[in-house]
Amino acid sequence: MIAPVARVSRLAVTPSGATVGERAIPEETAVAIVHNGSTYAVMMATPADLDDFGYGFSLTEGVIDSLADVLSIETLEFEDEAGVLGVEVRLWLDEARAGQMVARRRQIAGPTGCGLCGVESLELAVKPARTVPDGARFSAAEISRAVASLPPAQLLNHQTRAVHAAAFWEPEAGLVAVREDVGRHNALDKLVGHLVRDGHAAGGGVVLLTSRVSIEMVQKTAMLGASVLVAVSAPTALALRTAEKAGITLVAIARDDGFEVFTHPHRIVLDGAEKERIAHVG
Amino acid sequence: MIAPVARVSRLAVTPSGATVGERAIPEETAVAIVHNGSTYAVMMATPADLDDFGYGFSLTEGVIDSLADVLSIETLEFEDEAGVLGVEVRLWLDEARAGQMVARRRQIAGPTGCGLCGVESLELAVKPARTVPDGARFSAAEISRAVASLPPAQLLNHQTRAVHAAAFWEPEAGLVAVREDVGRHNALDKLVGHLVRDGHAAGGGVVLLTSRVSIEMVQKTAMLGASVLVAVSAPTALALRTAEKAGITLVAIARDDGFEVFTHPHRIVLDGAEKERIAHVG
Repeated sequence: MIAPVARVSRLAVTPSGATVGERAIPEETAVAIVHNGSTYAVMMATPADLDDFGYGFSLTEGVIDSLADVLSIETLEFEDEAGVLGVEVRLWLDEARAGQMVARRRQIAGPTGCGLCGVESLELAVKPARTVPDGARFSAAEISRAVASLPPAQLLNHQTRAVHAAAFWEPEAGLVAVREDVGRHNALDKLVGHLVRDGHAAGGGVVLLTSRVSIEMVQKTAMLGASVLVAVSAPTALALRTAEKAGITLVAIARDDGFEVFTHPHRIVLDGAEKERIAHVG
Repeated sequence: MIAPVARVSRLAVTPSGATVGERAIPEETAVAIVHNGSTYAVMMATPADLDDFGYGFSLTEGVIDSLADVLSIETLEFEDEAGVLGVEVRLWLDEARAGQMVARRRQIAGPTGCGLCGVESLELAVKPARTVPDGARFSAAEISRAVASLPPAQLLNHQTRAVHAAAFWEPEAGLVAVREDVGRHNALDKLVGHLVRDGHAAGGGVVLLTSRVSIEMVQKTAMLGASVLVAVSAPTALALRTAEKAGITLVAIARDDGFEVFTHPHRIVLDGAEKERIAHVG
């Protein structure tokens, strides 16, 4: 298998001089998701947890609805003369599901290029997210505990300082799962795949992201059925509007010294002193 | 036109209480790049400098080779009942070029999903970057000056703290151009579009990025013909291998206190003291 971290030599230049040494950097591999022999998409991703990625991506894209749609999954590495070319994650779906998928593919015209989002039309790019269940409430202290739990568990990031993480946290269990990737979308898809394969319901916890929140992160969280999304960085305005419509509580800019709630604040339970402070501002 | 920055109200929660207030966050808009009436790709992007984006994306994707291939360009906003749906950037190409493009589209099978990179096959995802010209040399002090010049010019980021920048810097002129976007790929495509439209040659300066360096950032830099790429964050191992093959000097982890050179260090001219330090290590 391809290692997710590579050690390379480089020249470090500082005001006091230059030294040759080593640094750990993340690998980046082309990963094709293939359903019943047809390539659905190719993503540049960290070569780890690729079964989770295959399930999670297929779920958040709506190609499958549940684990039961997948008959088998396999990952195969391909090489060209220069070395490793990439990995194919091949999912074999049942006939009824595969038929629907072919019908869907035919509605999508034309090739796509490269960017934040590789979809094929304006309508598909901003499609409304699924509405989430009401789910649990969390105190401000619980949100802060969730945020603080993530950095110690970012094991690939400890080595490289250059990969994103997506994680799931619950009040009783603490950190349930963490997945890391050079792409923030991929990290979240891997998390979704893991939780669904594990049979873990999403209504009682929060999704944690180290990244900024763009619309796709909200759409994927909605497909998982989680009602609270907590991110270290800021949301886009479109992500905010999408979370508002989907019923998701969007918490962002979550740091050691607090966090900001952008949508559906009723799931964040404030104590008496905090409520009084808001009343004074209002 | 859609504003690139939105002001929203949110609840800020800190250990000392909660307050309702405003925050500026970046807008995010679906932008379709359309050549002669056919959609090539849809990206989620910052709605600013979209003409630059249309030219730059078309150049770095290899759909056009030069400005002369484009007869006209127009941007149109589309709305659904809920508000702004997105923007189409329509480029009209000359007949010979359009014919080649159609031939190319036919070789690309199937739809794609969402991810770091929306290409359709493993081969396309890791295609070798164009080899760059030898270009200019830069002293360590010049690289540091270039890096320091960027933050004061990130005007959208001053408001939102959540957008990436790509810029071009030359020793004589200083900062030549800056483009910002919620997507780092888009920021670089906008920069490429601006430089090419301006007739600005890339051989005498460096491309600056606030982001991490994945393979696409190296491929786009190579399409511009710039030979030195300087990024604030780390490269992936695949980006490093691609830069090595393309002849690009890849400088990354560029901070106030120094930077690291990963490939083709001959373009970074060290003074006597720095060279001596390397000799001692070696």
